[in-house]
Amino acid sequence: MPGVPPSRFAYLGPPGSFSEAALRRLPAARRGTTIPVSSIPDALDAVRDGDVDAALVPLENSQEGSVPVTLDGLVDGAPLLITAEVVLPVTFVLAVASKSTPVDRVVSHPHAIAQCRSWLRRHYPQATLGEVLSTSAAATAVANGTEPACVCSPLAAEQRGLTVIATDVGDGDRAATRFALVSRPGPAGPPTGNDVTSLVVYISHDKVGALESVLTQLSVRGVNLTRIESRPTGERLGRYSFYLDCAGHINEPGLGEALMGLRRVCADVRFLGSYPRDGDDGPVPAPIGLARHDFADAVTWLRGLREAGA
Amino acid sequence: MPGVPPSRFAYLGPPGSFSEAALRRLPAARRGTTIPVSSIPDALDAVRDGDVDAALVPLENSQEGSVPVTLDGLVDGAPLLITAEVVLPVTFVLAVASKSTPVDRVVSHPHAIAQCRSWLRRHYPQATLGEVLSTSAAATAVANGTEPACVCSPLAAEQRGLTVIATDVGDGDRAATRFALVSRPGPAGPPTGNDVTSLVVYISHDKVGALESVLTQLSVRGVNLTRIESRPTGERLGRYSFYLDCAGHINEPGLGEALMGLRRVCADVRFLGSYPRDGDDGPVPAPIGLARHDFADAVTWLRGLREAGA
Amino acid sequence: MPGVPPSRFAYLGPPGSFSEAALRRLPAARRGTTIPVSSIPDALDAVRDGDVDAALVPLENSQEGSVPVTLDGLVDGAPLLITAEVVLPVTFVLAVASKSTPVDRVVSHPHAIAQCRSWLRRHYPQATLGEVLSTSAAATAVANGTEPACVCSPLAAEQRGLTVIATDVGDGDRAATRFALVSRPGPAGPPTGNDVTSLVVYISHDKVGALESVLTQLSVRGVNLTRIESRPTGERLGRYSFYLDCAGHINEPGLGEALMGLRRVCADVRFLGSYPRDGDDGPVPAPIGLARHDFADAVTWLRGLREAGA
Amino acid sequence: MPGVPPSRFAYLGPPGSFSEAALRRLPAARRGTTIPVSSIPDALDAVRDGDVDAALVPLENSQEGSVPVTLDGLVDGAPLLITAEVVLPVTFVLAVASKSTPVDRVVSHPHAIAQCRSWLRRHYPQATLGEVLSTSAAATAVANGTEPACVCSPLAAEQRGLTVIATDVGDGDRAATRFALVSRPGPAGPPTGNDVTSLVVYISHDKVGALESVLTQLSVRGVNLTRIESRPTGERLGRYSFYLDCAGHINEPGLGEALMGLRRVCADVRFLGSYPRDGDDGPVPAPIGLARHDFADAVTWLRGLREAGA
Repeated sequence: MPGVPPSRFAYLGPPGSFSEAALRRLPAARRGTTIPVSSIPDALDAVRDGDVDAALVPLENSQEGSVPVTLDGLVDGAPLLITAEVVLPVTFVLAVASKSTPVDRVVSHPHAIAQCRSWLRRHYPQATLGEVLSTSAAATAVANGTEPACVCSPLAAEQRGLTVIATDVGDGDRAATRFALVSRPGPAGPPTGNDVTSLVVYISHDKVGALESVLTQLSVRGVNLTRIESRPTGERLGRYSFYLDCAGHINEPGLGEALMGLRRVCADVRFLGSYPRDGDDGPVPAPIGLARHDFADAVTWLRGLREAGA
Repeated sequence: MPGVPPSRFAYLGPPGSFSEAALRRLPAARRGTTIPVSSIPDALDAVRDGDVDAALVPLENSQEGSVPVTLDGLVDGAPLLITAEVVLPVTFVLAVASKSTPVDRVVSHPHAIAQCRSWLRRHYPQATLGEVLSTSAAATAVANGTEPACVCSPLAAEQRGLTVIATDVGDGDRAATRFALVSRPGPAGPPTGNDVTSLVVYISHDKVGALESVLTQLSVRGVNLTRIESRPTGERLGRYSFYLDCAGHINEPGLGEALMGLRRVCADVRFLGSYPRDGDDGPVPAPIGLARHDFADAVTWLRGLREAGA
Repeated sequence: MPGVPPSRFAYLGPPGSFSEAALRRLPAARRGTTIPVSSIPDALDAVRDGDVDAALVPLENSQEGSVPVTLDGLVDGAPLLITAEVVLPVTFVLAVASKSTPVDRVVSHPHAIAQCRSWLRRHYPQATLGEVLSTSAAATAVANGTEPACVCSPLAAEQRGLTVIATDVGDGDRAATRFALVSRPGPAGPPTGNDVTSLVVYISHDKVGALESVLTQLSVRGVNLTRIESRPTGERLGRYSFYLDCAGHINEPGLGEALMGLRRVCADVRFLGSYPRDGDDGPVPAPIGLARHDFADAVTWLRGLREAGA
Repeated sequence: MPGVPPSRFAYLGPPGSFSEAALRRLPAARRGTTIPVSSIPDALDAVRDGDVDAALVPLENSQEGSVPVTLDGLVDGAPLLITAEVVLPVTFVLAVASKSTPVDRVVSHPHAIAQCRSWLRRHYPQATLGEVLSTSAAATAVANGTEPACVCSPLAAEQRGLTVIATDVGDGDRAATRFALVSRPGPAGPPTGNDVTSLVVYISHDKVGALESVLTQLSVRGVNLTRIESRPTGERLGRYSFYLDCAGHINEPGLGEALMGLRRVCADVRFLGSYPRDGDDGPVPAPIGLARHDFADAVTWLRGLREAGA
């Protein structure tokens, strides 16, 4: 309901997941009710069905790339909008049931094992590595006593009363996951000066330069593309749509004009929301002549020409 | 005065010039007063000073190219707008004072001599050729008895009572001159569906691709460029402005958006008018997605997204 | 070794995986030795270390999108080249140990469960669904008697002697996985007229239009882009490289010129191979003036101008 | 004849013209024979017929723009090449037969009168102004005693023994004319690092963006466009070719590749020569990645990829 802030939030569980940790970053979520769901489609359906007001779902990971299930879930079915993003550093801990447990085996989700393999080899060369279906499931297995040690999130270890024997476990640095808070459609919040606009465009691929003409629609309005990903359309390999993140807000004149341009030249455009950018990156300065006031000036100038000829 | 049709018209004299013949093509001019002036700057000054309501001046010739004095006169000084164009086929006649005069010498303006040289060599191999300052002056010299024959416009021969002994004299075919009717600024007439918009843009030349970025502003809105000419800025060789003719009308959404785009990326833009195209060429069809109704659809779509998010 | 066809092939195991099924499509692999490995990095390392001559690894899936581990594994470390691709339709079967087993529970890899969920709900509404680490592991669990039924590949069922009680299980249609055969560097095979060239380009993202200028390098040479994917560079979110598939072959003049153009304008370019396209799609016809013979003609013309001026 | 420097030079007469003054700037012409001809077509024909080795003709004027007769004469007929350019400042003098002559009337070519009108009004308000067919003819009339005073070139006054009573007569400043030395085809001289390449391209105008795609062929190779002029094709108004001046030399790799690109996408391309730039303007620095050594690096890189795959 417009004007009423969301109070019920779904996140990708189980409790202690990185999704829950990300959701806790949002003040509204800390005041509201948070509900774990078992899959991304379930989270999006809960929003569409009105069971919750918003859902936090992972969009991309700095090491794994985009999360296809989320992108496809946003694009197929009734419209949903991204209203906020959360960028959460991914940090793993090594946890055991009690300090005296020997670390002769470590379990985790295959991705977490992959990211921590060198570190584990270095510090626990004698340990075997086992894969389970999630980092939370790994933490539960340790709490249940079925496994001696796991790699999981700090939150999962804390919630299950595990003992953390190492933090910042992992080979990569600065790994992070970007989450999107998704709601039913409504007007976007006001521009903040450092916003992201997400969209999906569909183009015909049978023409040399088709994607280039999409990007030209952005660049002539000074709109900076911060992310692009081709997605198979599901029809067959070789037919793609494009998921785009642009700097700017739908209520700004440059981005608005660019959206209209895309609408004209693309087979289809799906708007996925304008929302504040999370994280340290400030906005890229607008190219000369393409700042917000330049758009306002051009509108005034054209009106004068149309009314008075000079 | 807005709403009052022009009634006093200047043209590039002397009487009998191609400019007068072109002016007679305009119904308003046939009903009004027409005044010959001795130069293009004088014609434009007469409009600026309010001595006349409009002036017809030559813009370009299919064989000689543009008329620099006209372009410069439109660009420098108080704003003027083109409100109509006339494309006049250039046809020369060979005229004498009386049928019995021997054609042993033919005079005309150097350009006319150049365009008729082969024809004269073929039909009057014994005649010497002489150059004078205008085709009208040539006709006057024949009427005065100081020269035996001239190449001039049909109108000039008729006005001086000369005898035309050959029509369609000339080597080229389909030569034509394009004239512009110029007035003081005011709102453009309504779009006709086949209009021209003329402008001058100034760009920095110190950057590879500067002109290309101007043309991109047109092409992304589906605006067809029908003429481009670089003009020295007067500062020095190597510094240019660009005179552009585009298909479309300032009151159409695509051309309006393109004008705003040029305003933002160019050092300066001078609007020179939107007016109906004269001649047989129909408009080039708009590219897919860039017709007038596509612009209207995009405006509606964006408004819906801004208000309701979908 | 150049000139010696590969005879030892690694694939992503366990035996019966879709990777093994894809590898069997290649005649050379059917004649050679095939070796299962436990991860994509292991497969690529086996090639780099010379333990095998080539490895077949998954590149992208029509439903899940690209396989990040493969892309990253190709880009990081010693150079490797794609020398062939195999597009394999993904078909699942429902398999049991014996016909009499009641299907009250079905296990598989989470992706396979996701793709077959609706089908299973429709046909076996009473069955619970369980997730395990791979479709092959699911088949092994059924063969071992620890699970009653699984969704797996036809090959996995066949190799373990399972009974297939349903074929073409799944909700999507035309799902397919694209595999790449990867070798140590060497000259590409000859152009076939319907080839793919894969590359990774790195650009600076701090500039509006950076990606567009990459695409322009392709389009001006008539090179059709068939796939693009942004990949995080690992540094941090918001910094990307781009994985590109283009139509054409490095030994063709147009693509060669485009590669040189990319080399000049990109921060870095990594060539990943030119190889025949697998599947039904024929090549997109070259735009007017950009066919292979047009490139040859232009070379001849320029040589003439340089030597003789005309 | 290749290797033999030109020794016979035509220029646009009469003697004392600005063309003769420009020709004297070329060392080879000062050592050779110079021959006045009466028109630009005559000058070009003298080269084509082998009557002279080269001809100096005006290309453009900083105030009048291009010289259409020269452009058309270069484009139509047997090929000719520009081998040098001369940029000559245009300076007028006021000349009389003897100091005692009263300046009550001044004659000159209409263009010269136009450029000096304000100066003459200011300094000789009582003088009437008369137009004749050339500034040289004006000087001759004063020498003959038929006119009291003229505006002409310093050289024309000197050659006829006139008395110069004012120098630097004129309203504009820094006016200059650019001349081209034209020869029969042969290999261009070596690149100097600050060269101009002139060409004429023909494009189809029935397509939005046709000219833009021409300019893209230049910009992707970092070639700077220093002049562009649309020329009617002679067929009819609205059908144009484009005369282009580009920075660079045909023997440089970037310009060579750009020429081949134009050859492929244009209906026709006519090469008009690569020659050293005259005047103070240094070359615009190449964009990042598009300097000469970047082209050489890209050639080496591609060769390595083709031969060894990495």
